[in-house]
Amino acid sequence: MSLHFHDVETYLSQRSAFIQADRALRRENGRLGVLTEKEKQGDAIIRQIRKDEESSVWAKDYNGIPHPFPGMEFLTGKYIIDQTKLFQIVQKMPKGALLHAHFDATVNTKWLLERALQYPQIHVRTPAQVTSTSIGSILPEFRPRPHSTALLSPESGNLTSSAYTPGGWVPLAHARQSFSSEMGGPEGFDKWALDSMMINPAEAYGTHNTVTKIWKKFLSTFSVASPLVLFRPIFVQYIRQFLLSSIEDGISYAEPRINFYDRVMYDENGQANVPHREWLLDFDRVLKELKEEMKDQGREDEFIGAKIIYTTVRVVSAKELEWYTEDCINLKQEFPHLIAGFDLVGDENVGKPLTEYITPLLAFKKRVEELSLDIPLLLHAGETLGDGTKADDNLYDAILLGTKRIGHGFSIVKHPRLMEICREKGIALEVCPISNEILRLTSSMPMHPLPILLNHGVPIALNSDDPAIFGYMGLSYDFFQVIASSEVTGLLTLAQIARDSITFSTLDPSEKARTLALWEKRWDEYLDKIISQDI
Amino acid sequence: MSLHFHDVETYLSQRSAFIQADRALRRENGRLGVLTEKEKQGDAIIRQIRKDEESSVWAKDYNGIPHPFPGMEFLTGKYIIDQTKLFQIVQKMPKGALLHAHFDATVNTKWLLERALQYPQIHVRTPAQVTSTSIGSILPEFRPRPHSTALLSPESGNLTSSAYTPGGWVPLAHARQSFSSEMGGPEGFDKWALDSMMINPAEAYGTHNTVTKIWKKFLSTFSVASPLVLFRPIFVQYIRQFLLSSIEDGISYAEPRINFYDRVMYDENGQANVPHREWLLDFDRVLKELKEEMKDQGREDEFIGAKIIYTTVRVVSAKELEWYTEDCINLKQEFPHLIAGFDLVGDENVGKPLTEYITPLLAFKKRVEELSLDIPLLLHAGETLGDGTKADDNLYDAILLGTKRIGHGFSIVKHPRLMEICREKGIALEVCPISNEILRLTSSMPMHPLPILLNHGVPIALNSDDPAIFGYMGLSYDFFQVIASSEVTGLLTLAQIARDSITFSTLDPSEKARTLALWEKRWDEYLDKIISQDI
Repeated sequence: MSLHFHDVETYLSQRSAFIQADRALRRENGRLGVLTEKEKQGDAIIRQIRKDEESSVWAKDYNGIPHPFPGMEFLTGKYIIDQTKLFQIVQKMPKGALLHAHFDATVNTKWLLERALQYPQIHVRTPAQVTSTSIGSILPEFRPRPHSTALLSPESGNLTSSAYTPGGWVPLAHARQSFSSEMGGPEGFDKWALDSMMINPAEAYGTHNTVTKIWKKFLSTFSVASPLVLFRPIFVQYIRQFLLSSIEDGISYAEPRINFYDRVMYDENGQANVPHREWLLDFDRVLKELKEEMKDQGREDEFIGAKIIYTTVRVVSAKELEWYTEDCINLKQEFPHLIAGFDLVGDENVGKPLTEYITPLLAFKKRVEELSLDIPLLLHAGETLGDGTKADDNLYDAILLGTKRIGHGFSIVKHPRLMEICREKGIALEVCPISNEILRLTSSMPMHPLPILLNHGVPIALNSDDPAIFGYMGLSYDFFQVIASSEVTGLLTLAQIARDSITFSTLDPSEKARTLALWEKRWDEYLDKIISQDI
Repeated sequence: MSLHFHDVETYLSQRSAFIQADRALRRENGRLGVLTEKEKQGDAIIRQIRKDEESSVWAKDYNGIPHPFPGMEFLTGKYIIDQTKLFQIVQKMPKGALLHAHFDATVNTKWLLERALQYPQIHVRTPAQVTSTSIGSILPEFRPRPHSTALLSPESGNLTSSAYTPGGWVPLAHARQSFSSEMGGPEGFDKWALDSMMINPAEAYGTHNTVTKIWKKFLSTFSVASPLVLFRPIFVQYIRQFLLSSIEDGISYAEPRINFYDRVMYDENGQANVPHREWLLDFDRVLKELKEEMKDQGREDEFIGAKIIYTTVRVVSAKELEWYTEDCINLKQEFPHLIAGFDLVGDENVGKPLTEYITPLLAFKKRVEELSLDIPLLLHAGETLGDGTKADDNLYDAILLGTKRIGHGFSIVKHPRLMEICREKGIALEVCPISNEILRLTSSMPMHPLPILLNHGVPIALNSDDPAIFGYMGLSYDFFQVIASSEVTGLLTLAQIARDSITFSTLDPSEKARTLALWEKRWDEYLDKIISQDI
């Protein structure tokens, strides 16, 4: 770069080269020289629509939405996003692989509640009578129980009645039906139950507007929903529902994280006795059935399959972790095609750092190697605003432990050497834009570090993390938030991200090649649709 | 980095080396090997206090402050900051140089209003009667005017009376005295006037909670205050007040940006006829007087002096800019010791991008070179959340135009090549943490990109930008926000930042060496005070 220019023309030509050099690490740039006419056209169309909608959609006034802008807070902006042409187009995009989603937060909570209501085994209780003043803070506790549970009287099974004995189990349908009309009756019950399993805008952007506070609400949604998901008859349907909604959104392969912290789930009789092995048998069966169905519909190319990332929670002791790593190895040996890798979940700011697990994790890696198994670590790290805190430092350990990908890695942008290693060694980041925003790591998309990662050439995949809690399915909203809030990012960036989601999956080389080829075919058809305005 | 470890001990030693490698670019790291015992001790003390106050101060409940945390929103957190020992210590630190502050927003607005009230020349008007419903949105317009202005009747000079003729000029003291008691009387007037010159928390974090909206309020504060500052009798005292409060805060040298967009200021008769040359004569005289006073007090080592960064506003046309660059050259020729450089100010997201000024700026550089003058460009660039927008792209132009420092450079963290150039060529960033937060580029300090810059080895100086509007003086709050919100940053980081503020100033080599030496002496004394708990 020369800093001496004698005329504007020289200046401007140097300027272009300068910008190119600055963006040289962007992963989609490798393709810029070989772009098809279709790709250029499709990209231009998207850019024009985005530009138009900046004024036609985002500059308008919306009742109850104080500051609309592209990439704004998702929970209040969703209403506007749904009205955009850009979203309609992004929805139809083939997304590649979903690499970061916590299984028990991937299916519409309304669907989950409706399903639960069909089983007399499902009961509910509260620690106190639900009143119009306590309803905002009291949480339902759900649990599958044996049929036998009987009520002393109908009123004793009314959570909103003074006749209710705090802590007493009530059949779900009865609790709903008898819910006081002052609190909305059965619909009021539904609202209360769904609110307890989701985060609403008043919480994320008002009462719980810090990482620490929103995590409390976030974790409580899991506590409420989890006993419903871990009821085997629902579990089986939940798997199917998760996969169907993924396929619906253009996702052709998924690696959900299943939480195996609970050593058993509830069987259809409401007994907690279903071991992990059975969970995988169920997963395998549903997967096979769905693939058959897709084949019967001539849609087998839309869905390659799914694998499970085995996870437990970063509250276990180093000693306890050994039980889980051993369990994971056993499952991998029996279901080599189903186990994708191993991880620990939970709030990194609060839970144990990776340093506390070095001994069992090194032992695990050694054993995996001895057994010639393929169980990569796929560790959460750096999901934090901290600078030099234990959560931020987890990034060093994740990389030193040889993680294949990094879950979130939100704080890695502070670490020049770590970004370099990710770029050079091909460690992809599972970036979850909407989750990061709702969990208050960023107040909106323009503040999200994603553009830093893209310009530093760090491979990334976009992910939804816990879409049920955030009120959506699939990856379309995440892709939308990314393309809506940057002028650099275009359709070709999204394509690269989708390609990379497949490239950095745990699919074996031949599966990967096939999945990529199928994606390219769909991508080509997608471009046709954009260009012919068929979306 | 090897990814194969056989035991925990090897792992942990490699881990330390790994973290060091990641932080190798940090500018304070060069000194880590030669730290004195004092420095180590001082740093440890600060870290302990910060840690203690995380629970003793920040984990408490404060009435009206929903979410206290270190590095929180300044306008609500200031009340808590003021109670910390950490702030007390930071206040006493020798800060080095102030390199980025807009002169007309550097002195306490209360002081400004009190001063204005002493001059019968200062008048005020409003576009309509001020009522209890309009007071929240109606702005006062101040202006020095010839003595002669007379009122038809006392009531006609009451802005809150229906007898007031909208747009009619009223002597300031009369307007204040007659302000309706329903709106608080004279104190109500003061509140209204001060509110119009400052940003309050309800605006920054509520009604104006986006960059676009808060900039509207921000610019209006300048419109209100500027005619008071540009009244020569006040201007002269304002310079003195700015320098005194800087010295008070441990700043030993300043490079304020003065806005020369208005070609004349008001003289003591309320006539707009004082040319820029006279502004500099005033500045020079005040500076000399103050240095004399400091010398008389035996404090000459605390204050080296000040230079002016000549600025105009990025609304002028390329043609108009030529008048300003020529004006700047003329001033530099007459006052070589007073002109530090040249810049353009205003909202980069809205105003003209640097690309529109390439021709006049290249011509300016050429002429400066021909005349053998030293007028570096010190350009604002990248004060934006945009990714690939004109404001973000200003960074390319600022660097290509050879800027000596970058004003803000907030978005540079997205640009790997630009960070590298800043590191290699020694282009320092004038970072303004509190300004960035209040102007909604970041919602709090933990989200600020500063740690990214520090870890990438980009030289930076901390700055206050427009402290009068944000309700503080000096740099202590900015230094506090930085050290309070990072575990990596310690006292030695702050020292490096202070050193760099001198290193990257426009002082000539011998002045610079002297200023640095004086700073080192004060630093040493400061460490003594920390260690002996004398603060």
